[in-house]
Amino acid sequence: MADLNLNRRDLLAVAAAGAATALTSLPAAHAAAPSAAAQAPGFYRYKVGAYECTSINDGARSFPLPDTFVKNVPKDEVLAAAEAAYMPKGMVTVPFNPQLINTGSKLILIDSGNGIATYEPTKGAVGRTLQNLVAAGVDPKSIDVVLMSHLHPDHTNGIRAADGSMAFPNAEIMVPAKEWDFWMSDENAAKAQSNEMMKNYFANVKKIYAGIESKVTRYDWGKEVAPGITAIATPGHTPGHTSFAVASGGSKVLIQSDVTNIPEFFLRNPDWHVAYDTDPVLAQETRHKFYDMAAAEKAMVVGFHFAFPSIGHVEKDGAKYRLVPVAWNPTI
Amino acid sequence: MADLNLNRRDLLAVAAAGAATALTSLPAAHAAAPSAAAQAPGFYRYKVGAYECTSINDGARSFPLPDTFVKNVPKDEVLAAAEAAYMPKGMVTVPFNPQLINTGSKLILIDSGNGIATYEPTKGAVGRTLQNLVAAGVDPKSIDVVLMSHLHPDHTNGIRAADGSMAFPNAEIMVPAKEWDFWMSDENAAKAQSNEMMKNYFANVKKIYAGIESKVTRYDWGKEVAPGITAIATPGHTPGHTSFAVASGGSKVLIQSDVTNIPEFFLRNPDWHVAYDTDPVLAQETRHKFYDMAAAEKAMVVGFHFAFPSIGHVEKDGAKYRLVPVAWNPTI
Repeated sequence: MADLNLNRRDLLAVAAAGAATALTSLPAAHAAAPSAAAQAPGFYRYKVGAYECTSINDGARSFPLPDTFVKNVPKDEVLAAAEAAYMPKGMVTVPFNPQLINTGSKLILIDSGNGIATYEPTKGAVGRTLQNLVAAGVDPKSIDVVLMSHLHPDHTNGIRAADGSMAFPNAEIMVPAKEWDFWMSDENAAKAQSNEMMKNYFANVKKIYAGIESKVTRYDWGKEVAPGITAIATPGHTPGHTSFAVASGGSKVLIQSDVTNIPEFFLRNPDWHVAYDTDPVLAQETRHKFYDMAAAEKAMVVGFHFAFPSIGHVEKDGAKYRLVPVAWNPTI
Repeated sequence: MADLNLNRRDLLAVAAAGAATALTSLPAAHAAAPSAAAQAPGFYRYKVGAYECTSINDGARSFPLPDTFVKNVPKDEVLAAAEAAYMPKGMVTVPFNPQLINTGSKLILIDSGNGIATYEPTKGAVGRTLQNLVAAGVDPKSIDVVLMSHLHPDHTNGIRAADGSMAFPNAEIMVPAKEWDFWMSDENAAKAQSNEMMKNYFANVKKIYAGIESKVTRYDWGKEVAPGITAIATPGHTPGHTSFAVASGGSKVLIQSDVTNIPEFFLRNPDWHVAYDTDPVLAQETRHKFYDMAAAEKAMVVGFHFAFPSIGHVEKDGAKYRLVPVAWNPTI
């Protein structure tokens, strides 16, 4: 190690960061520089009181902006917002970020990401929750609870590994009662057959939960659903869509889930309706209530679709809002 | 490996991300959850044409806002800006980010960070360049060039390892000619004895470069100083302060160095004067020129004192500017 000019303290710090293997693959000095061709691991730690939380990046997906991505706004206006956010020309980029909460006795994963089989055209760019948990030193078998905000594929499909087995085999799976009842209703599914998107959503929930229905715990809004974690009613995006307040030792963070999809569009423009909402008018109302509260409280807000590490504060900007991302903290 | 529910592709991806060691330290399933107590490694890769670049986080330092941190603005106004950026109460947070440019044949490190012996009170929070290079799979011995923007301690002290030896023993050290001449002048040093800050800066340069003066290559503005890397005159912060354009295959990034210190203060308020400027009026003029150009070109800008990963775009906002940080890209 001496030839690296690193002392013992440095090496310990490197090892603690979970990256010591890099030492075994160092290029020879003064060889032509090989490219690494891989991004840094996508995890970021932050404290909420005594709780150690980790933002886990499931990846990000860039795709040509669909004509109806925002249902109540002309496409040109949406393209202009994408351009103002420096997204790839003509495209929209949607990131995905589950959150791991370590209460000291329980490991709780909030949402599970896309799973590795979804979005074939962009495979590799999403479905990274398992590999980023491992990069963070977390064994998927040690997860005690997977706490679902709602049952859209990008949040729930990650409970299955590539071979269809349970990705978190020892975890209790908790789903909002209202959400479970909505998607499990044959009557609702039958009504949705004329809507391609909704039809696919119903079929996906059936497929992902096939054979494990009895393993699912249904939870109610307004209750502490896990130690220090309270379920907040934020319906509209889906009928049972849920956000969470995580509180410990006088500190708090709001895990908003999908109160907005990407903030560059829907937090800046809270009255825009994303194509994925079940009830866009209710979602819009929820959004204003949630962000007015978050801005007044100066609360730290985590957004599943915010750019990794997906944490920030929301400030009012006239009738709109603005996200102030947290500055990366090299220590925790 | 099978019990992790990861397939071979996942494991390769994890290994490629340089994080495979984490596998050896997995906690036993269902033990009380141990806290990791360490942040993710601070490196982030981005492409500029064929060049693979890596933002290397040297850390970040939070300290009580000094009365004179901004010389021409009342402290209350500065505190309000810190609060609007959600910095710790009464404090200012300054991050530090050298850049590694891999041209395919040369490894060039732009600035070297604080070094591990500086800032005793916040030791551990800064001086992380070596450990983050190693986390990124880069042997410090493989660095071909250390390219200095200017000779302030947070940029140049990292050329020395903890024991005083050269941290990058095989690297040519390149310093702007104007900068070298300024700090190496005994006449300038003598004039600076009445100014505590400047006196310390002169002493620090003498100490860091003692015995290696002949290893230093002086470079001029407006020239290609390394393959694809052009030195841009941006004086004011120091007499020889330099920014860089890194260009490859029609793509370009501007590495601004210290055209501003933290953007929350000095990019938002380009007429504010940071205490560290040698010529604050010239620095202010440079700032406007540089950001007007960057905004007009919609250039990607890297800032040494931007929050990690320290990359964004600059947009005009009336007489001010606003930084739009890049969205974390999970692939490169």
